[in-house]
Amino acid sequence: MKLEMICTGEEVLSGQIVDTNAAWFADTMMDEGIEVARRITVGDRLEDLVEVFRERSLHADVILVNGGLGPTTDDLSAQAMAEAKGEPLVENTEWRQRLEDWFSKHNRVMARSNLKQAMLPESAVMVDNPVGTACGFRVKLNRAWLFFTPGVPFEFKRMIPEQFIPFIKQEFQLDTATKVKKLLTLGQGESMLQDKLSELELPEGVTLGYRSSMPYIEIKLFARGEAAIAALDTLVSKVHFILGTGVVAEDKPSLAEELHHLLLAKGKTLSAAESCTGGMLTSQLVAFPGSSAYLMQGLVTYSNEAKVKILGVKPQTLDDYGAVSIETVEEMAAGARALLDSDYALSTSGIAGPDGGTDAKPVGTVGIALATRYGVHSQMIKLPRRSRELVRQLSSAVAYDMLRRELLGEAPIVDYDSIGRFAR
Amino acid sequence: MKLEMICTGEEVLSGQIVDTNAAWFADTMMDEGIEVARRITVGDRLEDLVEVFRERSLHADVILVNGGLGPTTDDLSAQAMAEAKGEPLVENTEWRQRLEDWFSKHNRVMARSNLKQAMLPESAVMVDNPVGTACGFRVKLNRAWLFFTPGVPFEFKRMIPEQFIPFIKQEFQLDTATKVKKLLTLGQGESMLQDKLSELELPEGVTLGYRSSMPYIEIKLFARGEAAIAALDTLVSKVHFILGTGVVAEDKPSLAEELHHLLLAKGKTLSAAESCTGGMLTSQLVAFPGSSAYLMQGLVTYSNEAKVKILGVKPQTLDDYGAVSIETVEEMAAGARALLDSDYALSTSGIAGPDGGTDAKPVGTVGIALATRYGVHSQMIKLPRRSRELVRQLSSAVAYDMLRRELLGEAPIVDYDSIGRFAR
Repeated sequence: MKLEMICTGEEVLSGQIVDTNAAWFADTMMDEGIEVARRITVGDRLEDLVEVFRERSLHADVILVNGGLGPTTDDLSAQAMAEAKGEPLVENTEWRQRLEDWFSKHNRVMARSNLKQAMLPESAVMVDNPVGTACGFRVKLNRAWLFFTPGVPFEFKRMIPEQFIPFIKQEFQLDTATKVKKLLTLGQGESMLQDKLSELELPEGVTLGYRSSMPYIEIKLFARGEAAIAALDTLVSKVHFILGTGVVAEDKPSLAEELHHLLLAKGKTLSAAESCTGGMLTSQLVAFPGSSAYLMQGLVTYSNEAKVKILGVKPQTLDDYGAVSIETVEEMAAGARALLDSDYALSTSGIAGPDGGTDAKPVGTVGIALATRYGVHSQMIKLPRRSRELVRQLSSAVAYDMLRRELLGEAPIVDYDSIGRFAR
Repeated sequence: MKLEMICTGEEVLSGQIVDTNAAWFADTMMDEGIEVARRITVGDRLEDLVEVFRERSLHADVILVNGGLGPTTDDLSAQAMAEAKGEPLVENTEWRQRLEDWFSKHNRVMARSNLKQAMLPESAVMVDNPVGTACGFRVKLNRAWLFFTPGVPFEFKRMIPEQFIPFIKQEFQLDTATKVKKLLTLGQGESMLQDKLSELELPEGVTLGYRSSMPYIEIKLFARGEAAIAALDTLVSKVHFILGTGVVAEDKPSLAEELHHLLLAKGKTLSAAESCTGGMLTSQLVAFPGSSAYLMQGLVTYSNEAKVKILGVKPQTLDDYGAVSIETVEEMAAGARALLDSDYALSTSGIAGPDGGTDAKPVGTVGIALATRYGVHSQMIKLPRRSRELVRQLSSAVAYDMLRRELLGEAPIVDYDSIGRFAR
């Protein structure tokens, strides 16, 4: 079964918006063990659309078309498909009724232009869109089924699992069960992970993939068939054994999300005192609804004055050791924790670059501390040759991992292969 | 001149990484007044690459190929091009020397696999890559020039303006001068902007485009030819006149960046006290190198306790008016400013959702205040039906705009068309 994708819309083609639907779709299909063989992005010109539908229908079995189903004059996917097939557009009475119901339910007057959304190519099979006014549909042309979906991400992401995947599974008898297990890793390059996992014997039906989402790399174990699925747990244990502390979460896209759930589950509170991470550590947690239950405060104490006045760092400490030092981050964390008596506090202070480094403390030197009710853990890490953004990302991730490990009763400070550390 | 783009690489096709090069390229070409007609994304299979090079060479004048120039066995662009053209790969002695120099300069041993990067199709014209080991090149096949560039964004983004654009300008005599002016807008939907600007008479040679980059919409005025360029300034004034306070910056991609430069230029200092924006306001400024010069502190005072203890908000104020109120954000801003005696302080407190709303203060209610040495300006805005992320983005943007306007000597509080406000 050869699957291709056609993305339509000037705003995608012209770079006005980054095509996140395409990446999401390919990734989602990979989770089902199905590869997208080619992706074509075209604008809103009718003749271009007709040409690309005809041409690709000779080469692919299924073509997922995204976009161009809206009510405006730019939205030409249905018309182009009808022309490509050489048939008229006809009104789908079921969808017209749905449109009328939708508008009356939302107390809105339906513009005449919306009726266009019920016009489908004559041979089209309607495909339900449960959350919008753009009607999905599919049409067979030459070798291919062309499957039309709206560009609105929220609608698209409902229709793929609910409509598209069941359709191709049935149409192409893809009835083998599949399962994906994702392991989030920190502090290991992709080539390093590949080297280490090359010794891993993959049971039949299991494939291994990588997905980079800075500062993490996600390992994907994909199993096809009951035997492969049954072997997955053992395989996950082996990956844990080989990578050790490099694996920081399972089936979570980031450490911030892992930590969010862990803090809620354990009922513990957190404060943060950030210097070089500059609010990133706090902000990534605040992104999750419900974080107010554990996050007491996040203090971005960029200036020395703020470190002294708000966190109670001793001026002598700053004079003796500097703002980027074990001693300073320890006092920052202890001060932030004590302020509101939270269970934990994390602190960072470092040189994110591109300037500000010295021989003793080059760009990428970052101090990180975790204060608990019983003491403070701290380390100074080395992140040379990383961008400012990546230094901040990695520093936040290491800080999260310290607290994650502490919450799980493990030693908070560990080595990560591609992250150096200063000796105490 | 018909321009197409071919993006290669399994990691792009499979959604392991979002293809930001493609969006950046299309956007950059638009700034030159050149449209990308079609974009095709293929994996790393040799036969797929050969097929797509041959096929598209019959339809386009120029094809920008991105990716597949690295040293590994997956990198097949040069080999595929040689096969498509029916010619051998030959070693480019100039690039081999460059490789040897590059490795010796960086004190690294060159792996044998790197020599592959000097192997180009026989008829290829070398294209310089000043910042990496992947050699660019171009080959003429059928109607098209295929122009090969590395996938590494940093290298790609150097080669497009330095090599690709001058090449096509010369090859296709695109010697008309062009200029782009970008106006950043806040608080106006795209259809609203279109409506308002529909009365605008565009001089010949000027086109108008929109680019959404939440929470902003950027207006692009593109001028081709001396007369059009000369008319641009007047046109920009007209857009300012029509949109009024909706235009918040010129030729800057975000208000954070505009404010960063403004604070540096004016030598003023800033503190922030964030509740619902949760560090986002601070973090977007910290992203710019040099922000430590003006940013004294950013306090994420999520809990009431933190608001009282750190910022000196009166418990009575919280009891009487609640955490999301004019009174509270005013005390937050005044407290944050006084702490380190900074010139300004911004504060936010709101209900970002999806839960936590009440009838009186529904989700999307956000209080924002700006404290100066002479007083406090504050407002309560309404952002209904926005996601948690967008409420935080818009709140940060409105706060930035208040300070931007204050720094320019303008009234800090204004109406934005699509942002409601509570009456005092």
